[in-house]
Amino acid sequence: MIKAAIMGYGTVGSGVYEVIKKNQVSINKKVGQELKVQYVLDLREFPGDPVMDVLTHDFEDIIKDDEVKIVAEVMGGLHPAYEFTKRCLEAGKSVCTSNKELVAEHGAELIRIAKDHQVNYLFEASVGGGIPIIRPLNSSLTADVIVEISGILNGTTNYMLTKMSREGLNYGDVLKEAQAKGYAELHPEADVEGWDACRKIAILTSLASGNQVDFHDIYTEGITKVTSEDFAYAKKMGCAIKLLAVSKKMGETYCAMVAPALVRKENPLYMVNDVFNAVCVEGNMLGASMFYGSGAGKLPTASAVAGDMVDAARHIGKVVTIFWNPEKLTLAPKEKMTHRFFVRMKSDAKDAKVFGDVEMIDAGIRREIGFLTPVMSEGEFEEKAKGLDIISMIRMEG
Amino acid sequence: MIKAAIMGYGTVGSGVYEVIKKNQVSINKKVGQELKVQYVLDLREFPGDPVMDVLTHDFEDIIKDDEVKIVAEVMGGLHPAYEFTKRCLEAGKSVCTSNKELVAEHGAELIRIAKDHQVNYLFEASVGGGIPIIRPLNSSLTADVIVEISGILNGTTNYMLTKMSREGLNYGDVLKEAQAKGYAELHPEADVEGWDACRKIAILTSLASGNQVDFHDIYTEGITKVTSEDFAYAKKMGCAIKLLAVSKKMGETYCAMVAPALVRKENPLYMVNDVFNAVCVEGNMLGASMFYGSGAGKLPTASAVAGDMVDAARHIGKVVTIFWNPEKLTLAPKEKMTHRFFVRMKSDAKDAKVFGDVEMIDAGIRREIGFLTPVMSEGEFEEKAKGLDIISMIRMEG
Repeated sequence: MIKAAIMGYGTVGSGVYEVIKKNQVSINKKVGQELKVQYVLDLREFPGDPVMDVLTHDFEDIIKDDEVKIVAEVMGGLHPAYEFTKRCLEAGKSVCTSNKELVAEHGAELIRIAKDHQVNYLFEASVGGGIPIIRPLNSSLTADVIVEISGILNGTTNYMLTKMSREGLNYGDVLKEAQAKGYAELHPEADVEGWDACRKIAILTSLASGNQVDFHDIYTEGITKVTSEDFAYAKKMGCAIKLLAVSKKMGETYCAMVAPALVRKENPLYMVNDVFNAVCVEGNMLGASMFYGSGAGKLPTASAVAGDMVDAARHIGKVVTIFWNPEKLTLAPKEKMTHRFFVRMKSDAKDAKVFGDVEMIDAGIRREIGFLTPVMSEGEFEEKAKGLDIISMIRMEG
Repeated sequence: MIKAAIMGYGTVGSGVYEVIKKNQVSINKKVGQELKVQYVLDLREFPGDPVMDVLTHDFEDIIKDDEVKIVAEVMGGLHPAYEFTKRCLEAGKSVCTSNKELVAEHGAELIRIAKDHQVNYLFEASVGGGIPIIRPLNSSLTADVIVEISGILNGTTNYMLTKMSREGLNYGDVLKEAQAKGYAELHPEADVEGWDACRKIAILTSLASGNQVDFHDIYTEGITKVTSEDFAYAKKMGCAIKLLAVSKKMGETYCAMVAPALVRKENPLYMVNDVFNAVCVEGNMLGASMFYGSGAGKLPTASAVAGDMVDAARHIGKVVTIFWNPEKLTLAPKEKMTHRFFVRMKSDAKDAKVFGDVEMIDAGIRREIGFLTPVMSEGEFEEKAKGLDIISMIRMEG
């Protein structure tokens, strides 16, 4: 029997408990012995919930029990999750987490501490919820040099953009509706400003490069300025508008960005709608592959955490190699990224010529022009756009 | 330094050699030491090719070299691949393969032999070419009970069906064109009769259930009878026609089938076109996820084999758990599978009533009727269809 603990009995934590209870027989078979949840840590009480049998309010109960070999950290936030994780690893317990803030901030350090203590720090659930993407990147695509990663990594914003596209609604109305349905939080900034997607692309870029990417270095733009007029133009161009997190190899480093983007029908990300997430990975040998599924939600995320617990149980005493060193990767400056840019200006067509040979797009909106520039760098675009009366700009992907 | 050998210098074998040469620096970093190809085994000579430096015609050179710890078996076919693989594993060498025939036929046995000798038998490239699907099933989705797998697992037939759909061509013309382009073989039966997809769904069902599935037990129907008229009806229904390999959990076992199927727009498999492959996996907790990419081709397949070689190098002396026991799984009989059936008959509408409350489909084709039955079992359908003058029948998925 292998004993485990779950730290946090919120949405994901109660999901992990439910997944293990429900699939106990099949999980035990895959582990090769029983995986038993011995403790659930939460400060609250849950009267009438069977979890009361294993509930504790004291982290020390877990840390002092040498038989506990696996801990799921599903508390969220940086503190005390960081301190608890570190102490668990140092006490010889593997930790499995869905905590993207902590992984993005301290991933490399915690992986090193785990290795030093012959245990594992696993974080499949931190990106893409239930979609297996961390393990494929880490263990499957290892013969490839990763050339590009592009993903729809946030379910809330994808739900909102899908709704805007289908129903012609404005940002504000869609946000209200998403909040009413529980898809968006009362303080939705982490989602709508792109901060959540930013942490996730930082984690993926760290794994692709093998070095620590600081998410603060990644240019991040949310969806708050996307309007129904933008969607009218997008449809004219046969495109969807998606909040894309992109990371591209540039020489010996990567350049990463989170921003709304026009995605063409030919791109497999075009059809990723509603709360679904997807990640495209392009290797220099493999070409493109895509991983698609439920990027959030209680049970999909819990399934990924519990899958890591099975993996940790199979690797007691063995360290799973994770290629992520603490040395910081200096990202290439955003100004070097190249795209076509879709621009709306209060002007007439001849003013668009400053961007070169542009393609005019007519979506029937008066007193403005819309056009696509040729491919140019962000730096070049900024230079040319100086002093112009630009209403909005959206990058075109691929 | 870890020494490796490649058995077979055909399309995939030369690809593996190329991938390792090209990405040697990054592969060495991920392994933690140099991965060196010491031998390439092939009966032929390759004058002028740098492979001549490491070419051998004698398998004994590899087996006798105790320093060779990893062998890529990319010869294809059952013999001598089976004997060579067995001897390598027994000699303490891990084997990585793209050989789906061998994996489908002897997978469980070879995994057990590998385990007995503290080495690994890895076969990511045997299903879905470059798409990571074996490792996610085996190591990521372990907390879930797999409820359904459905996939487009053969690139040749998907290319042909895409072409038929887009250009309104007939099967025979598309086959000729695919053969001229090198996408289909001169003897195309393994692809067009569904045998290739059948072996692959047998492998996936074995991994989902943990027991050995005999591919001979899987009902398999190819694409040779699909006509341009079928596509006319499919378009009326807003569907694509795909060669689907499907495996569904039924009680304690699974029921599997390979056959052309109508796939609706809402299904993520709908947009999988040309030579691309994709696998949808539905877990009881996770919901649906999809893995998409290049299902065949020299470099994608070679990338998957080389990725397994990196994994084998990271696991020298450690066994990667693979949940696939030699006990045979008795599949549920095909007759128990349920779908809607699309039927074309030389008849008039009232004769369709034998199938119950059918939905008539008018694709403007004279002297026949086309209709969708309600959901019923294969057994029930066969019973009702007895003695009727049916032109064609295609199942509807999802």
